[in-house]
Formats: sequence, structure tokens, C-alpha cells
Amino acid sequence: MILTVTANPALDVTYRVATLVPHGTHRVSAVAERAGGKGLNVARVLHALGEPVLATGLLGGATGARVGELLAGGPPASFVPIAGETRRTVAVADDGDATGFWEPGPAVSAGEWAAFVSHFRSLAEAADVVVLSGSLPPGAPVDGYATLITLAGSTPAIVDTSGASLRHALAAGPDIVKPNAAELAALLAPAGSPVRDAQAARRLGAEAVVVSHGPGGLVAATASGCWRSRPPYAVAGNPTGAGDACVAALARGLAAGTPWPDRLRDAVALSAAAVAAPVAGDVDLDLYERIRPDVTTEEL
Amino acid sequence: MILTVTANPALDVTYRVATLVPHGTHRVSAVAERAGGKGLNVARVLHALGEPVLATGLLGGATGARVGELLAGGPPASFVPIAGETRRTVAVADDGDATGFWEPGPAVSAGEWAAFVSHFRSLAEAADVVVLSGSLPPGAPVDGYATLITLAGSTPAIVDTSGASLRHALAAGPDIVKPNAAELAALLAPAGSPVRDAQAARRLGAEAVVVSHGPGGLVAATASGCWRSRPPYAVAGNPTGAGDACVAALARGLAAGTPWPDRLRDAVALSAAAVAAPVAGDVDLDLYERIRPDVTTEEL
Repeated sequence: MILTVTANPALDVTYRVATLVPHGTHRVSAVAERAGGKGLNVARVLHALGEPVLATGLLGGATGARVGELLAGGPPASFVPIAGETRRTVAVADDGDATGFWEPGPAVSAGEWAAFVSHFRSLAEAADVVVLSGSLPPGAPVDGYATLITLAGSTPAIVDTSGASLRHALAAGPDIVKPNAAELAALLAPAGSPVRDAQAARRLGAEAVVVSHGPGGLVAATASGCWRSRPPYAVAGNPTGAGDACVAALARGLAAGTPWPDRLRDAVALSAAAVAAPVAGDVDLDLYERIRPDVTTEEL
Repeated sequence: MILTVTANPALDVTYRVATLVPHGTHRVSAVAERAGGKGLNVARVLHALGEPVLATGLLGGATGARVGELLAGGPPASFVPIAGETRRTVAVADDGDATGFWEPGPAVSAGEWAAFVSHFRSLAEAADVVVLSGSLPPGAPVDGYATLITLAGSTPAIVDTSGASLRHALAAGPDIVKPNAAELAALLAPAGSPVRDAQAARRLGAEAVVVSHGPGGLVAATASGCWRSRPPYAVAGNPTGAGDACVAALARGLAAGTPWPDRLRDAVALSAAAVAAPVAGDVDLDLYERIRPDVTTEEL
């Protein structure tokens, strides 16, 4: 079983309006709600692939209850309750594009964080891989992911976060970190080439670093070598959630002990399949099967 | 006790952002939530005045539960549960002004509406006045307010709604209807003068019609005469909720049997006090006391 952590989930709300007019009043013609958060996207992709998965994290208030309701029928979930209100994100889609409004996350108390850490520890014992995705909520310690990696013990860990949280997590020796190019650039002074940057990040403590470059594919620095894996063509669609699909593939490959070149091919194909699906956390399984044989992987 | 009905309440959410940029992504710096809906504003104003009041209506889902939580500490409330999700309104406030997004209301089933009507009937027996405010939710019959007015029997009713719902309500003979000038113009072909229009609306079935004209005050057509009541000066502030404060004053005056000129003076003063308060449903009680003696009322 793969355990995904979403420490700062959200109720993702999408409003459909004709045209967004600043300082106007808009009747929303359609409302869509979805349980949001990177770890939940990873769990949904794994669930769609038939991979055993369990989603955990922290949920609170009426918004948290709604997120829990929306998870019904999806991947199994076991979240820890908090007193604060789980945040919402509101995306207003008009004929042009989407306009986003992101609420800050709820403040988590020291006692709530401790309860979550204890819950995580018991779930991680039964897991083959743990996946730590996204931001930590206000009030959680900045080295929260480092603590979870340490507590996971012999269960391998994948981390997809950024900033100080990523820096702390690297020092705890995770098996894989998956920054995107911008997150990597914010972490260290760029060395000039994608593979050198991945190697430099790896020296901060991870067993392997996989950097996502959007339609340019993945660059991986591992103990057994460095690779670049690319899709055969750019897939049109919604790139939100592509990184989460990549992490889902890496988690599955890590659990199965798949060799790195195959693991990366799978991650590139599944990322492309996420771009082709309209909603983050969904994947186009037909495209995934079609594109996978044509993904190219070269050793660097 | 004054019973206020909010058939289509909302969770009013306000987001603070620096500047709204269409198709951009905004981190929300502050989130404010409030139990919204015209009937709830009326109940809050009456509660602030120390007037016995009870708020009823329909609430559902996680958003309805949140509205219920937010009512704690305010006026007493007794809402009927529905399966649908109570709607939200999102107002994005930037340095310029606010941009509003209004969700459609939840669909109410025939059984849910019947349960509400039954609940209303029992509460109305104990009420001195019933106040019916705002829109009806999808699924409620267009003559829903007319039914409630009839069921209230000898308990007098005030109606503040618009369109077809207002037209049906008028035919059921409410004691007072309170359209604004635009709602009145949508109801009938304007006769050319505010008092003639109020009289024309009264002939559609109401015992009295009070038309609100914003900073221009109120025009009333009643069985005992017609009046115009005006504030001594225009009050700067937020006009949202001023109509609800007006209705609160009219309900209190109707319950107490206050003569029309005094009732209108009170309604103009309380409307001005609502404009001076930053949030809909709040009133500036100091301004209310200060401005009340200077409100002018002339018989037309």
C-alpha cells in the first residue's frame, strides 16, 4: 500500500461565469467542487491505476467535512481532525481562462500536529512507500516532512514540496524528491545544466532527485546514474496535476523496485496522461498506454 | 416575537486581495465568513435592537452547517434541513472595490418545501409578525410566499422580494411589501410619480406598500394615507443591508402598532444606520439615535 500525505488539503471550487469583469457582480452558472491537494491527486491517480493506496492528512471544519464527503468513492482515506477550517481554492473560469483565489491554510496546533504524526507513524508501518506532497499548513513545524521521513523508518519516502520545507526534507534522506525546475532553482544557485542541478540537489541528502521540466520531460540524478526522459510530443491540455501523476508513477516504481529507466518512462507517460485529462488528479489511461512505448530515455 | 424567513440563505465569503487581475492567481490575505441572506440580516438588526426575533428557513450540506455555526451568538434560529448544499456568495475585495460571485441556490424538493411550510406554520402561530425576505430557492413554488402569508392567518406579514415571487405574494394580501424603486418598476408600468407607483402596487393586493429610494428615503402608500420620509443628509458607507434594516424597523413598528409617520421615520433612520455600518446586517446604533429626530416625513 502507498500512503499519501496531504497536510494542507483544500476544497477546490470552480465557478463558471461568462466573462469576469473586475468590480462586477457575476451569477455563477455552474459550480464544481473537488477534494483538492497534491497528495490527494497522487492518491487518485494510483487508485485509477488499481494500485492499493491510502490518503491521510489533516481536515477540519465544515469545509473539511465537505472534502471528506467528496472523497467517497475515490481512494480510501484516513484523515486526522483539526479545529480549524480546511482552506478553499476558488477558480473562476470564463471564456478566456481561469482566475484563481487561494485561501491560506488553517492554523494547526502543536497538539493536532502531534496527533497527526502519531497517526502517520502507525499507517506508515503498513505502507510500502510514503508520499509527502505539497505545502505544510500554518502552525506545522517547517521540518515536519523531515520528521515524517525519519519516523517512516525503513519505509521509503518520496517528497514533492518546495522552499524551506524541501530543504529540511532533503536533510532527512528521502528516497526521492521531485521538485520542478522553478522549485529547484529556488533551492540552490543553478549550476548551469539540468543534470548538474539535479546532482547538486541530491548532495543535499536525497537518494534520488527527479526534476520535472514540463513538456521537456524529467531529469533524474540517482545512485545508479543520471537520465533524461522525454515524451515523444507535447500533449495539449491542463498541466495542473501532471507533477502529481509523475509522483504517483515514481511511488509505484519505487514500491515495485522498477529499474530507473523504466520508472522514468512510466512517470513521463503518466504525466502526459494527466495533461490530457481536463481535471487535476485524473489521467487519460488510453493516452498513457499509447504514449508509453514512445517515451525516450537517455543516460546522461 | 418577529419571525424572519430566509428561504435561500448563503454563506457569504469575503476575500481580501491586493488587486484583482483577471486570469491571474491570487493569494487571499484574509477570509471573512458570514451567515448571509436578507431575512438573516433583518433578524440580526432586530436582535441588535433587543427585539425578540426567531430566524427560520432552509439550510443544507456542509455549507449550511457552517452557516448554522456562524449564527451562534446571534439571533435564535430554527432552520429546516435540506439535502442540497446551501449556496455561497464570494466577494473579492481589492483596493478598488468588490467583485462578486453568486452561486445558484440548492434545489429544494417538494417534500423539503412541504416540511418547511409545516415548520413555518407552527412557528408563525407564536409570532407577532412574519417577515419573508429575498429569493426563493430553485424547486420552491413561485407562489411560495403567498402560501406562507395565507398560512400565517391573523399574524401580519411583511414581504421583501421581487419579480414573479412578489407578484404572487401581493395577491395573498400581505400587510406590507417593501420593494425598492427598481423592483417596483419591474413589477408594473411606471405611472410617473413615486407615490402613484406605490399606490398602483398597493392595488395589486397589499395593505401597504413602502418603496425604498436609497438616499432619497421611503415612499409609502397605506390605507390611512401616503407619506414620503427622508433622511436629513446622505450617509456615506455600504448600502448593502439598508433595505433589510428598513424591513426590520417596519416589522417592529407593525408589531407595536406604531403610527405610520413614526414607523417610517424609524425605518429611514435605521436604514441610514445600516449604511454607516461596514457589514450588511449590522447597524450603527449611535447614528440611529442621532439621525432619527431629524428625519422628515411629509404627507403626500
